[in-house]
Amino acid sequence: MGAEPLAGTELARTIREEVAATCAALAETGGRPRLAVVVATDDDASAWYVRSISRAAASVGIDCEIRDLGAAASADRIHEELRALSAAPDVHAVILQTPLPDGVDVARASEAIDPAKDVDGANPVSLGRLTVGLPAFAPATAEAVVTLLDAFGIGLAGRHVVVVGRSPVVGRPLAQLLLARDATVTVCHSRTTELAGHTRAADVVVAAVGRAGLLTSEHVVPGTVVVDVGTNPTDDGGLVGDVEASTVGPVVTALSPVPGGVGPVTTALLLRNVGRAAGERE
Amino acid sequence: MGAEPLAGTELARTIREEVAATCAALAETGGRPRLAVVVATDDDASAWYVRSISRAAASVGIDCEIRDLGAAASADRIHEELRALSAAPDVHAVILQTPLPDGVDVARASEAIDPAKDVDGANPVSLGRLTVGLPAFAPATAEAVVTLLDAFGIGLAGRHVVVVGRSPVVGRPLAQLLLARDATVTVCHSRTTELAGHTRAADVVVAAVGRAGLLTSEHVVPGTVVVDVGTNPTDDGGLVGDVEASTVGPVVTALSPVPGGVGPVTTALLLRNVGRAAGERE
Repeated sequence: MGAEPLAGTELARTIREEVAATCAALAETGGRPRLAVVVATDDDASAWYVRSISRAAASVGIDCEIRDLGAAASADRIHEELRALSAAPDVHAVILQTPLPDGVDVARASEAIDPAKDVDGANPVSLGRLTVGLPAFAPATAEAVVTLLDAFGIGLAGRHVVVVGRSPVVGRPLAQLLLARDATVTVCHSRTTELAGHTRAADVVVAAVGRAGLLTSEHVVPGTVVVDVGTNPTDDGGLVGDVEASTVGPVVTALSPVPGGVGPVTTALLLRNVGRAAGERE
Repeated sequence: MGAEPLAGTELARTIREEVAATCAALAETGGRPRLAVVVATDDDASAWYVRSISRAAASVGIDCEIRDLGAAASADRIHEELRALSAAPDVHAVILQTPLPDGVDVARASEAIDPAKDVDGANPVSLGRLTVGLPAFAPATAEAVVTLLDAFGIGLAGRHVVVVGRSPVVGRPLAQLLLARDATVTVCHSRTTELAGHTRAADVVVAAVGRAGLLTSEHVVPGTVVVDVGTNPTDDGGLVGDVEASTVGPVVTALSPVPGGVGPVTTALLLRNVGRAAGERE
């Protein structure tokens, strides 16, 4: 037996096709959507991710501009660049790539991104609006979890979802999206005692900490649906999630793979948000 | 036997004394702190609450100005008033009283309150900043719950807190405050199935729905600490919480009374926030 794989590749392809159609229509009337990515790191994984975003953007008809400020950029320099891009009429969407230089606070910096261009929901304003039910872009990773569950027909209303991880970019916004979908939501984290007691009581478990081996077979029961948001590099250049798939897979009902689960859906939704931001500007 | 009463009256008095000292110092250097309350309802309970805020403000040396726009005020009129008060140099703090006229969205209207004067944490910006750990005023009711628990030495780090109610003014911001204090947090609501299963598993239960009789003895076990945020008017002009105190009290370890629990602490914290907002403007 084994868990149903909650694969995201097909779903991501479908979303990208829709985005490509949107972008083609926009290109005919006003011009190609344009995404700016601000980078201030020489981190290899970050560079790889930015290139993959750029390629994915090109494939759907989105221009992607990388603004590399260097790993020594000051907070002021980063804020200034984000404000300039927010004001630029030919830029429809702005992402601030992490990590940032020491001493630069990502939340404060993100306040310089115009919420109308904040396609990865990084500005606290976006998160606040999301929380109170006003229109806002959600962080793409958080939205990808809900979109993936929807695609596989896994209901959320009245279900108990345990989110492991309380980061401002995944765990906390995801909790808001799940509450908006009428799930009962528990947020666990590094200070949670008896994590397994919480996750074993859940209908759906979302692992979003960023630590390989976080969830093992002792954390789940037959019937659990598990979504793995983790992307942890391995020594041999591969990628593993937060879930120990070899022991969890045989127990649970469904499990999203890493790679090929939440990741491709996240990228597709980010591009969809760029298309929407460009559409709003028409 | 019976539960320890988590009374808020003494704590509120202590906070008000601190605020009075702050306001006296401010009055000597720059002038009395000034709070503006925007009202657009003829609801009796609301009028009673505004009068009580006004009296409490006066008692600590805060001037309170009521701007009654009438129960027929338009959204535009309310936004305009909030923007004007946000811009007024002699006003340090702004509250928008609810309920609002039909068709006026409280979250949208609250976006017109300058976050620096948003002493009841109503602007989604305040909530977003709170969520990502940036400085912001928290909604006073949510902060009162944490302050009350602190005052009675009830630890939160690593404890499991179940919040019943997901409103943008209490449940959701409270969940953020509790996560920031390292609690494991579950948010339950009207669509939660088997509410008692969740609340019986908690170390601390916070009832914040606004329905008398929401929690009864079947929802708690010996050892549970219960904070009652509800304020429901009774037919005889009294006030009861969301917790059926007569059946819950004999079972649990501690229970906050209504009235005299969270309520007075909320008012005191609101005034403290006015003092802080005025202090920041010096």
